[in-house]
Amino acid sequence: MSDYSEIIKKLKFNKDGFIPAIAQDDDTNEVLMVAYMNEESIRKTLGEKKVCYYSQSRQKLWTKGEHSGNIQEVKKVLIDCDADTILLKIKQHGGACHEGYYSCFFREIKDSGEFEIIADKVFNEKEAYKT
Amino acid sequence: MSDYSEIIKKLKFNKDGFIPAIAQDDDTNEVLMVAYMNEESIRKTLGEKKVCYYSQSRQKLWTKGEHSGNIQEVKKVLIDCDADTILLKIKQHGGACHEGYYSCFFREIKDSGEFEIIADKVFNEKEAYKT
Repeated sequence: MSDYSEIIKKLKFNKDGFIPAIAQDDDTNEVLMVAYMNEESIRKTLGEKKVCYYSQSRQKLWTKGEHSGNIQEVKKVLIDCDADTILLKIKQHGGACHEGYYSCFFREIKDSGEFEIIADKVFNEKEAYKT
Repeated sequence: MSDYSEIIKKLKFNKDGFIPAIAQDDDTNEVLMVAYMNEESIRKTLGEKKVCYYSQSRQKLWTKGEHSGNIQEVKKVLIDCDADTILLKIKQHGGACHEGYYSCFFREIKDSGEFEIIADKVFNEKEAYKT
């Protein structure tokens, strides 16, 4: 089985060893969230076809949906011209946002200064993330 | 005229004073590029409705398209749940990528290790970026 070293060595990680990854709905192209990956999370994501990020706050691998069930199935993985940002084309189960929305980008910045909510919740986040 | 201070103070900049911004085609939802903004570039973008990033390599404001003419007209600006990533919904003139593609994400990462080109060029980058 490949350890994806050929891929890893072509990516440009930042000075802390991370690379930002955008999760995008493969059907609608809606942008769902942005998080960070390290080498190990990229290998795990490519191997299992289920998105695994690296949580900088918790300092550990973070398979999206491990608690909530809201996993992200990998359909395609794209890379930009500078090889320093990953675009994950995925099938999102449930919603991506820990606040109960399908996308983390559920607010529009208005010139007035207001952050206006422009989406409806798709799941009960208190239920999904209860411990 | 607003200096957008109400907006700026609600955003979470990273330790270097930057916030990542994704540019997305407002019609098709295609993701075009990711770059960084600082306070001043956000004020300029909101005021002029034309995307201005901050170039970390050149250490100065960078109005997208200032040389190539491939400007990005701002349609909407979204913010994520953590207020640490901006999503710019734009109308892209020409192409976003300095390599001549509409999107910087013109390559797919294959399990074989290959970065396969999956798009066609939309402009002559040598002509657009000649000095």
